[in-house]
Amino acid sequence: MNKYEKRGELMEKIRAGIYGYGNIARSVENAISKSADISLEAVFTRRDPNKVITASGVKATAADRAPEFKDKIDIMFMCGGSAADLPKQGPETVRYFNIVDSFDTHAKIPEYLDMIDERAKKSKKVAVISAGWDPGLFSMMKSLFSSLLPDGRGQAFWGPGVSQGHSDAIRQVEGVAGAVQYTVPDEKVLSEMRNGSEKDYTTRQKHRRICYVVAKDGADKGKITKVIKEMPYYFSDYDTEVNFVSPEELKREHSRMPHGGNVIRNGRTSGGGAYHVEFSMKFDSNPDFTASIMTAFARAALKLYEEKEYGARTVLDIPLSYLSQKDRKGQIAEHL
Amino acid sequence: MNKYEKRGELMEKIRAGIYGYGNIARSVENAISKSADISLEAVFTRRDPNKVITASGVKATAADRAPEFKDKIDIMFMCGGSAADLPKQGPETVRYFNIVDSFDTHAKIPEYLDMIDERAKKSKKVAVISAGWDPGLFSMMKSLFSSLLPDGRGQAFWGPGVSQGHSDAIRQVEGVAGAVQYTVPDEKVLSEMRNGSEKDYTTRQKHRRICYVVAKDGADKGKITKVIKEMPYYFSDYDTEVNFVSPEELKREHSRMPHGGNVIRNGRTSGGGAYHVEFSMKFDSNPDFTASIMTAFARAALKLYEEKEYGARTVLDIPLSYLSQKDRKGQIAEHL
Repeated sequence: MNKYEKRGELMEKIRAGIYGYGNIARSVENAISKSADISLEAVFTRRDPNKVITASGVKATAADRAPEFKDKIDIMFMCGGSAADLPKQGPETVRYFNIVDSFDTHAKIPEYLDMIDERAKKSKKVAVISAGWDPGLFSMMKSLFSSLLPDGRGQAFWGPGVSQGHSDAIRQVEGVAGAVQYTVPDEKVLSEMRNGSEKDYTTRQKHRRICYVVAKDGADKGKITKVIKEMPYYFSDYDTEVNFVSPEELKREHSRMPHGGNVIRNGRTSGGGAYHVEFSMKFDSNPDFTASIMTAFARAALKLYEEKEYGARTVLDIPLSYLSQKDRKGQIAEHL
Repeated sequence: MNKYEKRGELMEKIRAGIYGYGNIARSVENAISKSADISLEAVFTRRDPNKVITASGVKATAADRAPEFKDKIDIMFMCGGSAADLPKQGPETVRYFNIVDSFDTHAKIPEYLDMIDERAKKSKKVAVISAGWDPGLFSMMKSLFSSLLPDGRGQAFWGPGVSQGHSDAIRQVEGVAGAVQYTVPDEKVLSEMRNGSEKDYTTRQKHRRICYVVAKDGADKGKITKVIKEMPYYFSDYDTEVNFVSPEELKREHSRMPHGGNVIRNGRTSGGGAYHVEFSMKFDSNPDFTASIMTAFARAALKLYEEKEYGARTVLDIPLSYLSQKDRKGQIAEHL
């Protein structure tokens, strides 16, 4: 039993900071407030801290003052964006703090991991990166399934749920005032996978994209539709449905952030028999679900820190028992 | 990248032994034959080795000669029974070998773990215990789900599939010549769980037990039925159906060993939104599926051994990346 396992019992809390105050940060703040073993010490923002009102009432502090808190915070929840914020903020922050983030630019993870790892080893801190649901929980399932059952074929499905990246892409289209995009897995393909299919499926077969768009006054809706449907990478490989709605309807019907997904693997065990394994999930709030995962990996980061296992880790590098508030022996007795 | 990760590339194989030659052992033997990175060096049996013909053609050796192989085997797959064999064979074998087993007497796991851990640390070996599907893969899902999503309620379902323990229990009943017992989860309860139920369910509500029994000539079928249905622990808490069949029908219709199950957790993320997570699986061959899991954890055991991380581990104590034939960086690039 190490220091951070004991904390739960002794009510000596993990002292957390939040860096960047957006959607994910608000969910992290909420998750911390519901966690008996963690207290929120500070929220850091690059905006004018006097203009940031936090839900918990914790006073916001200018981001560049974060190093002053280095002895007051055990772990920093990095809540900036993956495109522009984290590649800069991660390496800087890990100089002073243990960190956890949900960096989600898949192609850049190896490079980001190496960069953070080098810095974290130098500063003797622990970082857990990409600890969301994809990358994150999905990655764990894909890795686990393919390691346990090497002979087979895996598929991942996303949604039904809002893709923030695709919604943003539509908002960049000329004449668009607002947009929300749902990624919807194809029920027929899902059902085939559940019945043991080991086929390949094209991108177009697996998911549809449904867009709710508010056009600016006088904009050419036909042209908007065409630009969206032909947008490379984001939409051109999918069957895309574009619906125009009023600003009121967009707000009323499409403001929530439910999401979900499935990781499925079908194949053969060594004797030739079939197997099917599936992880599925759905949730009402995408940022809350991500925050929940980050919170568990924050606990793991501190156990590793206590063991002086400095450096950067992914979700594949950490024993499951490290994620719990309970001690290892208690978990073994409960779950095995 | 450590020695056992490199082996895959260099085709220098993991040298495996099998201890005990029953159902699971035959599946392990098959799994090894399909694994490019593992070779089977020896099979140990307590029976007369001249009377044991292995499927792979590897010559059987008397179990008490196993220590002679201590420099020729990297890991021993322990395939004896959990009730009488493993508690004796595990501690003895880990004196000479790294071991992996699927010890499945849930209540005795903490005690067994401590015993093996002490011996393994003394002999500087690594043991991975209880690496099957339950305990094992199910335990991983239960632990992961409850750590990531602490506010909620989890349920596990087993089957439809044959329970060896329950089939054995029926075979002990006076007048019974043969029996196979299927554990069947209740579809209504499963469906409620998939729709987000956070209710409690009784044992009786969650599973039914369906028995196919061959009665001895002249046996009292009414009495057999009564004894089975009232058998404490095994049947008395369940709705149990007893069907009498001929020996031929039992063999023809009930000799296969398909199984499956579900681990489900429903609850609330911190903002009050609902979540549902589920792991489900089904497979044609119970021993093949177990052998597949043991094989992956054997790889993990050897990576730990290479790192001199001696002692006994459960499936909750090992990073997922250790289970793969691929190196860590390759897995991160592939799965994150």
